[in-house]
Amino acid sequence: MNANMLRSAMHVSAIFAFYLATMMLIPGLVDLYYGNEDWKVFASSAAMIGGLSALIAVATRAGPPVVSTRFTFLVVNMLWLTFCAAASVPFMFATIEMSLADAVFEGVSGATTTGSTVLSGLDTMPPGILLWRSMLQWIGGLGVIVLGLFILPFLKIGGASFFKIESSDRYDRPFARFSTYAYSVVGIYAALTVLCAALYAWSGMSAFDAVNHAMTTLASGGFSTHDRSFGFFASPWTHWIAIVFMIIAALPFTALILLALRARFDAFRDNQVLVFLGYTLFLAILLSMQLDLSETIEFREGFTKAVFSVVSIVTTTGYAVDNYMEWNSFTVALILVATVLGGCAGSTSGGIKATRWIILFGVIKRSLETFIYPHAIRTVRSGSVSVPDQQQYVTMMYFGTFFMLVGIGTVLVALTGVDLVTAFSGALTALSNVGPGLGEVIGPAGNFGALDDSAKWILSFGMLLGRLELFTMLVLLSPAFWRD
Amino acid sequence: MNANMLRSAMHVSAIFAFYLATMMLIPGLVDLYYGNEDWKVFASSAAMIGGLSALIAVATRAGPPVVSTRFTFLVVNMLWLTFCAAASVPFMFATIEMSLADAVFEGVSGATTTGSTVLSGLDTMPPGILLWRSMLQWIGGLGVIVLGLFILPFLKIGGASFFKIESSDRYDRPFARFSTYAYSVVGIYAALTVLCAALYAWSGMSAFDAVNHAMTTLASGGFSTHDRSFGFFASPWTHWIAIVFMIIAALPFTALILLALRARFDAFRDNQVLVFLGYTLFLAILLSMQLDLSETIEFREGFTKAVFSVVSIVTTTGYAVDNYMEWNSFTVALILVATVLGGCAGSTSGGIKATRWIILFGVIKRSLETFIYPHAIRTVRSGSVSVPDQQQYVTMMYFGTFFMLVGIGTVLVALTGVDLVTAFSGALTALSNVGPGLGEVIGPAGNFGALDDSAKWILSFGMLLGRLELFTMLVLLSPAFWRD
Repeated sequence: MNANMLRSAMHVSAIFAFYLATMMLIPGLVDLYYGNEDWKVFASSAAMIGGLSALIAVATRAGPPVVSTRFTFLVVNMLWLTFCAAASVPFMFATIEMSLADAVFEGVSGATTTGSTVLSGLDTMPPGILLWRSMLQWIGGLGVIVLGLFILPFLKIGGASFFKIESSDRYDRPFARFSTYAYSVVGIYAALTVLCAALYAWSGMSAFDAVNHAMTTLASGGFSTHDRSFGFFASPWTHWIAIVFMIIAALPFTALILLALRARFDAFRDNQVLVFLGYTLFLAILLSMQLDLSETIEFREGFTKAVFSVVSIVTTTGYAVDNYMEWNSFTVALILVATVLGGCAGSTSGGIKATRWIILFGVIKRSLETFIYPHAIRTVRSGSVSVPDQQQYVTMMYFGTFFMLVGIGTVLVALTGVDLVTAFSGALTALSNVGPGLGEVIGPAGNFGALDDSAKWILSFGMLLGRLELFTMLVLLSPAFWRD
Repeated sequence: MNANMLRSAMHVSAIFAFYLATMMLIPGLVDLYYGNEDWKVFASSAAMIGGLSALIAVATRAGPPVVSTRFTFLVVNMLWLTFCAAASVPFMFATIEMSLADAVFEGVSGATTTGSTVLSGLDTMPPGILLWRSMLQWIGGLGVIVLGLFILPFLKIGGASFFKIESSDRYDRPFARFSTYAYSVVGIYAALTVLCAALYAWSGMSAFDAVNHAMTTLASGGFSTHDRSFGFFASPWTHWIAIVFMIIAALPFTALILLALRARFDAFRDNQVLVFLGYTLFLAILLSMQLDLSETIEFREGFTKAVFSVVSIVTTTGYAVDNYMEWNSFTVALILVATVLGGCAGSTSGGIKATRWIILFGVIKRSLETFIYPHAIRTVRSGSVSVPDQQQYVTMMYFGTFFMLVGIGTVLVALTGVDLVTAFSGALTALSNVGPGLGEVIGPAGNFGALDDSAKWILSFGMLLGRLELFTMLVLLSPAFWRD
């Protein structure tokens, strides 16, 4: 680490913060249009952050940075911290009055597209603040795609590295590659959002609800404009549109790019897509059958609710359609498992993700064979692609680290006085970026507002850690990172 | 797999079953002495199993087997299944009347030294059946030591392989090595048991209780002769003797052998001993402080109970001294974490174990450095020993597999209708071979008797899987194992 790296990273972050400040003008204008006081909050936040970041950007200006691995780690962490900090500012000063811990929690939950909320009374909340929450998730979702497709493969951390757009790509210049595809990524993401919003509106949502939910659907975010989330909308059409778009949002974005740019469908024949759709379908069928057997709900309604709940959790979106805590304990156990599954690498979804499960199974299968024939040489495959040793290693390490962090998180949250299910599912949902936890407090019918401030800080940190695939952030703990 | 291997494995298992049958005569004689009807059950079980196994042993007799890796896997699985089956027979026919699922559960819980029980009314139960439960754990504990020191390193599965008795050992002839050390292992194990029993008796236990508890303490088992477990014994001396011997039982047995045979203390300066004692002490202090702050209990009593509970769970013994479910949610979260920690490799304790945690931390530390400097070559160390790549790989895979199995177990147990905490902690405690779970049903004050038969079968399977370090048993799922 040297002063030059820090300066360059601050410069990049300041420019990003400036853009975020201009974004704040959008909810500001909306509030001004509806005659809500909060327009002043957004305007002053924008002025404050915009001014400060412009100053820092100018002060740290110099030649272009040397893009090393270490610099990339530094920039990614700093950008995401900047994003979370800037995201929280309007919450802090808004007329709804939130404490610092609440504002940061809501900001981090938005930026990381987690979707846990401390707010209630969403239905009567000013439009500006609601739009800001949705925008945060939408921008965050875009950030996650960029991270997953361009940055993590370069850092050799994420699971997206063997889903290459061009087979000749060597991932040695992440930012250069990004600039090539920047327009396609933003364009496709925006087009899908518009399409989703149009369909939501067609199915009966108000224009405002449609826009907000489309943004949080494509981001696998899960913030809603109603306390009852999708339970507020009666039409099964609305629910099924959400199901389809939540699944699209959890597909590898590379496949969507190939489809849009070259009309190629073959990228969907990717192994992780099959596995992701496979376990989602399996859990949805299991849950529907169980609901049908319990006979407390009409089948078609139960089917929709079961599929919606499973898709919402597996894709780490986190919308609620019904309080499944009241269904039965089998449902709750299924949702617990679904919380860690995740979508595809290179999408906006979080959690462990299909790629890692494929690699885990591959490694187990291979190892069971090598236990018997120690000298046999076999490779771990995902579909027809062989998984490099380094990626197997990092993936295996991810599992151990993930569950260790869940354990630590559970103990820390329990220390704030909540029950075990709340503490455990809270830690799990934060690290997986899902949104709702389990139990009465933070379950699908509750929210995180009732928790202690200390629990909110812990979970905010967990969301960020999960979003950065653990290691992008844990690298900062290594003395090697800070060495000159 | 060929017919010759199967025949040899059956031969070995039959001889083992014959020995087990003769063991049944001991509780039989005790029941006869006390004038209890059950002596007939033990006598007929012994005759039945003894006769059948003698027949099989003669029928499968041939030259000595060729000890291959595959044969060793087969024998270990078959021996442990035989053990569990034979262990269950007296329960099935005893006067206390147990269902098949109950008998198998109790037998497996004994043989795997888990210590979960379906029985209540232990205080008034005939002595024969109580002694049989304790003997199962004692024999099981011996089996675990042999497995950990001699078999698993040869199979390249367990974590004991780099704790070598002789640095020149190459672990290529596990059974030959075992025969060299067989007397020392059995002798030291028996001597410690006698010492523990004497101290228990000195502290106020009846002779019968002292013998039974000594056997289940050294085995990290946890079966008691009282429903209230160690809560039945008022003397703090009794509790502290248990604490000391539970810790001794969780130390690597190689260190005890070196101490006994060569008066060498240096084997205790092993890294995993330090780490195991470190986290046990840390949790014990944390729990004592929390209990002291909550001011519901006198400090010295609280301290004893806190240390006892932590040591009992971390060493996977599973005795209860008090119902910690009633303390507070922080305690419950700590106990949840303690459930997976485990003792040292090469001891009678189960769980993930100190070695694996050392390797996980080593791998994370190393990887964080290689993320930054991809070309740096660094080794993962445990103390001064470098951990072979293959062991790192298997250890990492263990974490993923363990938590995946906990997830599957949770869903399956929840399907039988119990609440989430019972399902989750049941799956966890079975795979870790701890004993008690969490919650009202299977927590320290409850027992497993109230569960559905299907849940008992699932958990019995889980205990066996956990005891065989997952992979020893999962290997049977690999087609490569069965290939000719």
